Amino acid sequence: MESIKNLLKSKNTEFIMEAHNGLSAKIVENVGFKGIWASGFSISAACGVRDCNEMSWTQSLDVINFMTDAVDIPILMDADTGFGNYNNLRRLVKQAEKVGLSGICIEDKIFPKRNSFDKNSEQSLSTISEFTGKIKAGKDSQSNSSFCIIARTEAYIAGFNADYVLERAISYADAGADAIVVHSNKETPNEIIEFMNRWNRDIPIVIIPTSYHKTPVEKFEELGISMIIWANHNIRASCNHMYKISKALFDHRSITNIADDIASMQQIFDLTHMKELQEADKKYL
Amino acid sequence: MESIKNLLKSKNTEFIMEAHNGLSAKIVENVGFKGIWASGFSISAACGVRDCNEMSWTQSLDVINFMTDAVDIPILMDADTGFGNYNNLRRLVKQAEKVGLSGICIEDKIFPKRNSFDKNSEQSLSTISEFTGKIKAGKDSQSNSSFCIIARTEAYIAGFNADYVLERAISYADAGADAIVVHSNKETPNEIIEFMNRWNRDIPIVIIPTSYHKTPVEKFEELGISMIIWANHNIRASCNHMYKISKALFDHRSITNIADDIASMQQIFDLTHMKELQEADKKYL
Amino acid sequence: MESIKNLLKSKNTEFIMEAHNGLSAKIVENVGFKGIWASGFSISAACGVRDCNEMSWTQSLDVINFMTDAVDIPILMDADTGFGNYNNLRRLVKQAEKVGLSGICIEDKIFPKRNSFDKNSEQSLSTISEFTGKIKAGKDSQSNSSFCIIARTEAYIAGFNADYVLERAISYADAGADAIVVHSNKETPNEIIEFMNRWNRDIPIVIIPTSYHKTPVEKFEELGISMIIWANHNIRASCNHMYKISKALFDHRSITNIADDIASMQQIFDLTHMKELQEADKKYL
Amino acid sequence: MESIKNLLKSKNTEFIMEAHNGLSAKIVENVGFKGIWASGFSISAACGVRDCNEMSWTQSLDVINFMTDAVDIPILMDADTGFGNYNNLRRLVKQAEKVGLSGICIEDKIFPKRNSFDKNSEQSLSTISEFTGKIKAGKDSQSNSSFCIIARTEAYIAGFNADYVLERAISYADAGADAIVVHSNKETPNEIIEFMNRWNRDIPIVIIPTSYHKTPVEKFEELGISMIIWANHNIRASCNHMYKISKALFDHRSITNIADDIASMQQIFDLTHMKELQEADKKYL
Repeated sequence: MESIKNLLKSKNTEFIMEAHNGLSAKIVENVGFKGIWASGFSISAACGVRDCNEMSWTQSLDVINFMTDAVDIPILMDADTGFGNYNNLRRLVKQAEKVGLSGICIEDKIFPKRNSFDKNSEQSLSTISEFTGKIKAGKDSQSNSSFCIIARTEAYIAGFNADYVLERAISYADAGADAIVVHSNKETPNEIIEFMNRWNRDIPIVIIPTSYHKTPVEKFEELGISMIIWANHNIRASCNHMYKISKALFDHRSITNIADDIASMQQIFDLTHMKELQEADKKYL
Repeated sequence: MESIKNLLKSKNTEFIMEAHNGLSAKIVENVGFKGIWASGFSISAACGVRDCNEMSWTQSLDVINFMTDAVDIPILMDADTGFGNYNNLRRLVKQAEKVGLSGICIEDKIFPKRNSFDKNSEQSLSTISEFTGKIKAGKDSQSNSSFCIIARTEAYIAGFNADYVLERAISYADAGADAIVVHSNKETPNEIIEFMNRWNRDIPIVIIPTSYHKTPVEKFEELGISMIIWANHNIRASCNHMYKISKALFDHRSITNIADDIASMQQIFDLTHMKELQEADKKYL
Repeated sequence: MESIKNLLKSKNTEFIMEAHNGLSAKIVENVGFKGIWASGFSISAACGVRDCNEMSWTQSLDVINFMTDAVDIPILMDADTGFGNYNNLRRLVKQAEKVGLSGICIEDKIFPKRNSFDKNSEQSLSTISEFTGKIKAGKDSQSNSSFCIIARTEAYIAGFNADYVLERAISYADAGADAIVVHSNKETPNEIIEFMNRWNRDIPIVIIPTSYHKTPVEKFEELGISMIIWANHNIRASCNHMYKISKALFDHRSITNIADDIASMQQIFDLTHMKELQEADKKYL
Repeated sequence: MESIKNLLKSKNTEFIMEAHNGLSAKIVENVGFKGIWASGFSISAACGVRDCNEMSWTQSLDVINFMTDAVDIPILMDADTGFGNYNNLRRLVKQAEKVGLSGICIEDKIFPKRNSFDKNSEQSLSTISEFTGKIKAGKDSQSNSSFCIIARTEAYIAGFNADYVLERAISYADAGADAIVVHSNKETPNEIIEFMNRWNRDIPIVIIPTSYHKTPVEKFEELGISMIIWANHNIRASCNHMYKISKALFDHRSITNIADDIASMQQIFDLTHMKELQEADKKYL
């Protein structure tokens, strides 16, 4: 199987997309993506809870375990802060490898974290030394060399300037991170551009263009971004359309007018390989 | 809180709609439905597995636990065959009450079950006595009197005629079922109509018009149907739109043209009550 | 069912004992105890992990769910720090009520906590205001009035004197705690005695005489202690004897000489009510 | 890591011992055993439930996941009937590999199974063809060649004679089973002896001398038994001693006289590697 680590080494800018359950993972694979972002925001939202560690880390892994079952492309887990200190992170790495994750991404905030687009909550950063200790502990505890640990700095989100973001990124690279996510919640990519213009290390840079999505990705390719994460769009697609269909059904008490706007039963049977089951019946029953 | 049991007693034909995770449950509540169908097909499909008990019953309850957390309207669990014999059912009833379900619906097939719309698989029925034993065991083991156990007969699905469906329905009513689901996978409602024309018991009848959805619900109201289940439409909505959005993102490498076709981050924050969190911060931090 | 809250109100000094799984819970009930301490240390140790939040909080609740199934006496969960901030605590309270716990006990340390008898680790306290915020948030989020939240101060463990322990205990009582655990890891009860001599509130005091067990409990009854927790003795019993039996089997390759030193299969069948199953078979099969 | 498969190939009669949680697994490893039997009876009993599939299969795997974390020796899961049909077994094999099991043992009974020593319950066998279908499906679905699937025949338990036990054993060997467990619940080993005298295949035979434990194991070595399972002795040790200690604490309200009869806190700290944590603190904090 391909790995996130190999995608990071690719000469091209690679794209991975959010999934939040087995079905969305399968869809992401089917349309052609090479990797999946198991988004903490999306997994939480799908479960109906908030993106501030209201789910336990093992509940997230239970969801992800279905995702790794469903697809052959590698999955990168959005692992928030690592769910505690360095020792919690070590537990996470062990279990992440067990469920078949290809890597995790951890961010330099305080547990329990707050969503980076929640502008009304305080965004507190961990100290640099606390976070580099985590990175080292994580890297020392992985048993599969293809597993990757990506460090995400939320320094821009917390209001700091490029100097400080660079200081953190360099520290994380030195601590052994396989790549750095530089996160920004601005509507323009200026923070990312300034960072990339000053970044001179060999380690891959990953971005999440949720708010500054109007910038064509060609710009990020020029900047030398290694990987772009479409981080939350399947849950947002799902939410939008379920609302529309549920409302139509409630208001009109009929499926008939919306039947073409939803997948057929057969399409879902196909996505979950019902035909394989029928063939296996002949073989094993 | 309202209960499924009370909805069954209502003089009107009541409608409940499928949800398969906390988010869809919240949406079903928000658009106005009075109850939720926790569909086995949909919960399985969301997890990326097939509707033949590939998930364990406790994995299903883990999903449902998030759903009961998310909403105030009652939830009816599609509990397949009860996941084994009468004793497995007793365990299920105890745990179903613990997670806050308002009732369960069990069907007269053999564990592991096959989806009723899977026309290539054998649809085997349990014996009547085995299934009435289950109903009795379930009713004897519930501790909350408002909890309901609905018996679903798959006799039409298995190819039997109305005589036999009626025989089963009467037996299940006599065994203590709170209502009967008569299931049909035909494109016309003829099987349902024949059943209702001959049904003369006082116990509520529930239907699931997935394949015969073109019949206006007024017809079912006339027939005296107590409850109609829109059983799988949120997962089908979700699947359809996630595919569309994922494909667009893969093909065009840009969100911009589809941004209006997906929920905003803020809409999801609203659905999961981020504002409550910010207010609680002020109170407790 | 009796509640921990009522035991705390009793005029006598009440005793509850540790259990760490369904079987030990059943044993604690069978020998006559009125309540159970679901020890974090013991549950972790039974799972083979360390008492520093290596298990997730939902994994702990999964264990406890089997315990509440197994017994009719109330169970008090050792909930460490509440597993994060006030909001994590609110989630915990909701789930604790769902699994049928009678109450939780939270301590004024930092997540992830360290075991109080681990003298080589740093024992860091939360601020008083952070912890009273947690207590208030917890009390505001419970839905069952018989549920109790006990506040445990680790100030003695962290090296502080009685003045500071009293300050914390008073603050926690004022914040709404149903009782206070004053914890000490000394071999004499002097810290407890000094505290009790100066304590003049009406709220119950609970102790855990693990290290100062040589003091007869009559002394604690005189001091007006409301509840005594035997906090870890079943896991220590289990560990000791499993080691002995495993070693004997390995060394001597025979059960015969140790058969009288282990429970019979029938004793375990009896503890798990096999007879009830056989009777139910006749009724429902 | 060693595998159960390699132990089966050993020229000696090998011994594995029951564990039912992380702690007992660690103890079994520490006293010197080369492998562990993750007993369904014991895991159920530890959770306080009966050995008739009252736990879901994923709940069992959650327990076992802690066991595989705790030890370096291979673990063989007692997987009852495979928890349903061939397709449930395939799901199990996939998840068993993920949690790090070295193999599973499945038995030729009907789901939900009954414990083989429960003489008041009916012991129904599956058909031979249904069970060989399962074995083939299981073997075809494993992805790690060192994973083993052992077939256990309960034909003696169900009252059949050696002819039929041999017929089943041969069928299971032909279907691809890595070894055969011949189970007997008699107090003498006569059934085992007759089987071994007539067995002429090259595939390893495994026994579980729970009831016929008075026969010295040298006898089984002579017969050519490949592996002996001490199948339930840790849970029986644990149960016996917890009862004794709990009763003493309840009756005498003092630990002091029993302190030497239970493990110290330090012993449990040692078993769970607290020292490693303190060293890691220095490295990563």
